[in-house]
Amino acid sequence: MKESIITLTTDFGASGPYAGAMKGVMLGINPGASLVDITHEVPQGDILHGAVVLAAAARYFPRKTIHLAVVDPGVGTKRKPILIETENYVFVGPDNGLLVPAAEADRIRRVVALSNSRYFLPEISPTFHGRDIFGPVAAHLSLGAGPSSFGEPLERYVTPEMPGPTVKDGHIFGEVLYVDTFGNLITNISRLDISTSLPGAAPEDLEVSIKGAYISGLVDTYGVSRSGLTTALFGSTGALEIAVTNGSAAKALGAAPGEHVTVRRAAEGGRR
Amino acid sequence: MKESIITLTTDFGASGPYAGAMKGVMLGINPGASLVDITHEVPQGDILHGAVVLAAAARYFPRKTIHLAVVDPGVGTKRKPILIETENYVFVGPDNGLLVPAAEADRIRRVVALSNSRYFLPEISPTFHGRDIFGPVAAHLSLGAGPSSFGEPLERYVTPEMPGPTVKDGHIFGEVLYVDTFGNLITNISRLDISTSLPGAAPEDLEVSIKGAYISGLVDTYGVSRSGLTTALFGSTGALEIAVTNGSAAKALGAAPGEHVTVRRAAEGGRR
Amino acid sequence: MKESIITLTTDFGASGPYAGAMKGVMLGINPGASLVDITHEVPQGDILHGAVVLAAAARYFPRKTIHLAVVDPGVGTKRKPILIETENYVFVGPDNGLLVPAAEADRIRRVVALSNSRYFLPEISPTFHGRDIFGPVAAHLSLGAGPSSFGEPLERYVTPEMPGPTVKDGHIFGEVLYVDTFGNLITNISRLDISTSLPGAAPEDLEVSIKGAYISGLVDTYGVSRSGLTTALFGSTGALEIAVTNGSAAKALGAAPGEHVTVRRAAEGGRR
Repeated sequence: MKESIITLTTDFGASGPYAGAMKGVMLGINPGASLVDITHEVPQGDILHGAVVLAAAARYFPRKTIHLAVVDPGVGTKRKPILIETENYVFVGPDNGLLVPAAEADRIRRVVALSNSRYFLPEISPTFHGRDIFGPVAAHLSLGAGPSSFGEPLERYVTPEMPGPTVKDGHIFGEVLYVDTFGNLITNISRLDISTSLPGAAPEDLEVSIKGAYISGLVDTYGVSRSGLTTALFGSTGALEIAVTNGSAAKALGAAPGEHVTVRRAAEGGRR
Repeated sequence: MKESIITLTTDFGASGPYAGAMKGVMLGINPGASLVDITHEVPQGDILHGAVVLAAAARYFPRKTIHLAVVDPGVGTKRKPILIETENYVFVGPDNGLLVPAAEADRIRRVVALSNSRYFLPEISPTFHGRDIFGPVAAHLSLGAGPSSFGEPLERYVTPEMPGPTVKDGHIFGEVLYVDTFGNLITNISRLDISTSLPGAAPEDLEVSIKGAYISGLVDTYGVSRSGLTTALFGSTGALEIAVTNGSAAKALGAAPGEHVTVRRAAEGGRR
Repeated sequence: MKESIITLTTDFGASGPYAGAMKGVMLGINPGASLVDITHEVPQGDILHGAVVLAAAARYFPRKTIHLAVVDPGVGTKRKPILIETENYVFVGPDNGLLVPAAEADRIRRVVALSNSRYFLPEISPTFHGRDIFGPVAAHLSLGAGPSSFGEPLERYVTPEMPGPTVKDGHIFGEVLYVDTFGNLITNISRLDISTSLPGAAPEDLEVSIKGAYISGLVDTYGVSRSGLTTALFGSTGALEIAVTNGSAAKALGAAPGEHVTVRRAAEGGRR
């Protein structure tokens, strides 16, 4: 088990001691664990952003990877610490929805409420469960402890408010889920949503609208249009994205998570 | 020795080549070293901030960890490169106070001035001792070289100007030491300072004041108050913190390191 | 081959899932690879900045290190994915000049266009070759696959527009190549350029001018002047730098990459 991979996704920020302290605790329990940062720069307390990032990255790791995620504004309150065992992975973190999209994508087998304090640090601070509970549990999992040894199964767990797109009269109504580091607007509309709701529509037949801007036709990738042009495309996770060639769509359009996005057949609108 | 852990705490910033170059040198000397970033985002040249972060994270690492820290505005001047051997660790870095709080917390055994150039890179740049001196020394330590092989014991070393709280007439006068990535204001007043100076005072009996704001009673953790409310609590390192629920106390109060903080028994003031 | 080092230099940013996804793919192929972040904070799409950072860091890694770099605004367009084998290393990334300065500094042996899809992910997104092509190729290289197994030799590859200094009438005309995280202005004028073009000139005899400011004489390191003073010195890579003691030269002078810098003998100008 020495080469066990544990990934870390947190909102601890890069400049403080928190990620370091958590890593120290984990290496104290399993010095052979291979700690891989996904990010410590989730916007603070932004559970949805953390959930999207974790879901986009987790699936690419090898079987038996342990995914530890801590975006935990409710630390020390009644929200439970949990683990979720899935087909290939174990996820560890707070019961606030953070782990669920990534776990569901890998099929959930069971959810366990972490209650066996034998696997925690001896003293639990009410403000830093990453260091005192989640980190130690992840490290003990990497040493081979089975999920059921950490506590009782949990029947009901918190699912995130992750809005899905709706469809009406040949229009798909979605929204921006997440702005990536390039300023690309990642929406909640997938390639599958479009092929299901607008069957037979080729990428060049689609019209995407956001904030009063209309984008005719999808492109394949970022660099194919003139610099500064707003484009739409399917990104690397299969979601519809709005991008600006060599620029930031978030800045150019003044758009943020929650912004409405509509997709329809261009021909139907007659606007082109 | 292959699994030796070396932690890194610097102000090199994430976007440049400096941390990478230092890691390359270390892996050239000990390819089996396990390099763990605490942070490379200490505010530039801010020795006190670096010292606080290192002290908060270092103690959670397993025995025999080597802690390398470089916040070194005096690089290439007369300040000495040193190592400090403590009960469980070896600290390596500049003699400017950076290492001392973390080292003192683990009991200092000896301080050595790094002078044996056998353990340095062949050519020493006057501007980058992290790469040319500190990194190589840490890597050689991780291969098993004893502290005394790096130079002569140093009797006097620089201690940081780390202000402690003062007590007068039932008031504890302290200050903000550090603002963490959540905007929490971490003070230099510890749980112990309060129990010593205000014996028998329960958390709910305390009044904390900062910048004209009065906070009555301490809470247990961040998420228990209404959003936007300013609270005081003992943070994960045992220090008194000022926090704003789901917000940034630094922004809300316009407070920075050095800001005065006072603690007293609420009853005594009669202000409530 | 288990302990193979793969360095990562990208513009993916720290807050998103992209670096994590790429690491996951690589660890899936070679769980024993040792992944070392140089940086994920290259300014987005800034190939020249990425090239300078990679060249400054890569050379310090041990022989057989694989350097993976992805700053790739042309992803999915006609630009080729390549690897460059050098004396000590293999570089993997897009054919846009990013890899060339670092590779040239280590002597290029051959350049190969990556075409053998056996070493790619089964499905190639047009927007994320770091995850789908470059990462997998680097991981397979770390398992021992030879450079020639990835595709055919490439005779012509893109070289970056990396301006060199020019010399006229005893003046060296250069420019700022890069602003480091301390705000130091790193120029394209090397120690060698100066000793060649102004033979016999001692550091104290040189005059450096930038944006109307004249700096008389070079110093050895950052911390030797009064706080706030603008100085010039040879930095840790041998390039002429403009720095402000305990401050940021970029801010103080309002200077950015591309800013003109002139060096001459101070005596010749008679301006002192």
